[in-house]
Amino acid sequence: MTAIVNPIVAVHSTGDGPSAWIAALKDEMPGVDARPALDIAGDDLARVDVSISWRLPHGVMARFSNLKLAQSIGAGVDHILEDPERPLHVPIARLIDPFMAGSMTHHIVLQILRWHRKADKFERFAAEHVWPMSEAFDHRKLHVAILGLGTLGEHLSRSLTALEIANTGWTRSPRSAAGVASVSGAAELDALLARSNVVVCLLPLTEQTEGVLCAELFAKLPKGALLVNVGRGGHLVEEDLIPALDSGQLSAAALDVFRQEPLPADHPFWSDARIYITPHIAAEVNPPTASIAFAKNIALIRAGETPTGLVDLDRGY
Amino acid sequence: MTAIVNPIVAVHSTGDGPSAWIAALKDEMPGVDARPALDIAGDDLARVDVSISWRLPHGVMARFSNLKLAQSIGAGVDHILEDPERPLHVPIARLIDPFMAGSMTHHIVLQILRWHRKADKFERFAAEHVWPMSEAFDHRKLHVAILGLGTLGEHLSRSLTALEIANTGWTRSPRSAAGVASVSGAAELDALLARSNVVVCLLPLTEQTEGVLCAELFAKLPKGALLVNVGRGGHLVEEDLIPALDSGQLSAAALDVFRQEPLPADHPFWSDARIYITPHIAAEVNPPTASIAFAKNIALIRAGETPTGLVDLDRGY
Ligand SMILES: NC(=O)c1ccc[n+]([C@@H]2O[C@H](COP(=O)([O-])OP(=O)(O)OC[C@H]3O[C@@H](n4cnc5c(N)ncnc54)[C@H](OP(=O)(O)O)[C@@H]3O)[C@@H](O)[C@H]2O)c1
Ligand SMILES: NC(=O)c1ccc[n+]([C@@H]2O[C@H](COP(=O)([O-])OP(=O)(O)OC[C@H]3O[C@@H](n4cnc5c(N)ncnc54)[C@H](OP(=O)(O)O)[C@@H]3O)[C@@H](O)[C@H]2O)c1
Repeated sequence: MTAIVNPIVAVHSTGDGPSAWIAALKDEMPGVDARPALDIAGDDLARVDVSISWRLPHGVMARFSNLKLAQSIGAGVDHILEDPERPLHVPIARLIDPFMAGSMTHHIVLQILRWHRKADKFERFAAEHVWPMSEAFDHRKLHVAILGLGTLGEHLSRSLTALEIANTGWTRSPRSAAGVASVSGAAELDALLARSNVVVCLLPLTEQTEGVLCAELFAKLPKGALLVNVGRGGHLVEEDLIPALDSGQLSAAALDVFRQEPLPADHPFWSDARIYITPHIAAEVNPPTASIAFAKNIALIRAGETPTGLVDLDRGY
Repeated sequence: MTAIVNPIVAVHSTGDGPSAWIAALKDEMPGVDARPALDIAGDDLARVDVSISWRLPHGVMARFSNLKLAQSIGAGVDHILEDPERPLHVPIARLIDPFMAGSMTHHIVLQILRWHRKADKFERFAAEHVWPMSEAFDHRKLHVAILGLGTLGEHLSRSLTALEIANTGWTRSPRSAAGVASVSGAAELDALLARSNVVVCLLPLTEQTEGVLCAELFAKLPKGALLVNVGRGGHLVEEDLIPALDSGQLSAAALDVFRQEPLPADHPFWSDARIYITPHIAAEVNPPTASIAFAKNIALIRAGETPTGLVDLDRGY
């Protein structure tokens, strides 16, 4: 690869636009030439070696003729893969922000503890100025099944273990990581579900995982389990949730992701007190911490080394 | 000490009475002769070597002429110390149940994460079927001051650290425990408060600590801090709390203990949305797990060894 003289980082994001991202990147990497992707034209197009983007309009990336890395702002890279003109030889990296894993873990720990320690019940009593009978919580009775034991699932597993909450991860291929219990394959999943009263979905959305959270899976859990979905909305068969709550098979669900986002105002989930809704904020990308990861990957690719978080397209995510 | 032939464990508790405790102890220690303290009479009084009690009526303990250990059901031993007839030579043990420390930590983690991740705000939006703008939580901005770094405080510190939440404990005398940051003394407390946006009180209630949570302490915190009181109600100057919330010096408080318990129905705390009330359930004693600790102490004292959790009366708690 030929080194580019005075390389440029092209930045694009939706929402508030790229300026907050450019500012955060400059804080982390003083002297970096980072510019809004859509403002780059003429000879400068050939100087772009790294694109940092979220939903860059299709066709724009193809104009960066010397691009070496397509860095996603976020854990997902679908928005890059969907660009029919994307340069196929350019490696794609998803964001691996250690602080994002911490945020995801905090979200899930909050949901599990709210449920385990009956926060709803005690909030209701407080609203009525009632001091109820005392209650002992026995966390030896918790067992969390973590579907998907990747970057986020493994971080969660270690944190739950530190909190003395028993847990087991589930993956596609068998794996062994010190201090993290895991199983793989369909038969082992059934056995895992049978002994888990909390299920957390941290899978990527693929053809194999779409709709995995369905009546059939719920039926394999002990009665009264908690479902936490922080993967993607497509993991849950939404029609199966309220019937499972009505039958008592599930006692509650904490959902951060939905088939349609924003969740439509007339969606039945909003009005169900057993469903705790958050608006896809479990691990919202945070410019100051994400920029630490971006700066590292820019430095690595410019030094001719392998950046972190490269996507293996054969795995399908 | 003379060994007692066929020794008896005398059990007393208020609330549901001693039967649940006796059953849990028998599960843990098959063959133990455990009986309700108030039912023991005649020659059997001299066979009691261990009393396991919560608020045993004054004078009863003095009748156990060969008593070797007064084991409290709970972390506090005031209810034993207050008995004017208690046999002064008998060692007193408070309950050290490792599962209780886990429960306390879960309670505090839940309170900190609810606040940090704005659970109230997102619950309000959900009630209105509104999907708000996204929000990134930056846990690098949290710093927790743990007042009291004993059995419970140290457990909390390690768990917060595992959750990537920075924290520092405060003690009376300097101490060093691997992996736990701590300071001691008045001047260091001021510096600690100045950099902490969460304060957790896990002190014992003594003459020195009564009223420690007061306007003067709140003023040393950065504006908008969270107060978590799980020590005793007497630690908080209750009159100082609502003014500190009104001025914005504190943004919220999570209280599990109160000067008067049950909290009276007309107490102003009930009606204040910034005060999150739980009814002294942070680390409720749980018979099955507490009995593990009781069985160990019974075995130790009967083997002539030192039981766990002996109270040092010189320290005043
Ligand atoms: N709600 C939010 O705010 C938010 C934020 C970020 C991410 N997420 C979601 O979290 C997901 C996980 O992120 P990550 O970074 O931890 O992903 P990752 O590192 O790629 O890990 C994915 C895990 O899922 C497993 N897996 C994939 N397909 C499977 C299958 N068919 N059966 C069983 N296991 C399978 C993988 O096992 P193998 O290694 O054996 O393939 C791996 O353990 C993302 O894909 C995204 O959907 C949500
Ligand atoms: N809400 C609930 O459900 C619940 C349940 C159980 C316990 N509690 C409360 O939690 C408290 C702590 O329990 P624990 O088992 O962790 O107690 P512990 O092991 O006795 O530890 C007490 C800690 O407080 C420190 N301390 C005592 N007096 C102090 C002073 N004047 N200034 C500064 N530090 C002082 C001690 O420091 P030194 O070692 O330097 O003296 C020690 O670090 C109990 O006393 C009780 O009030 C509440």
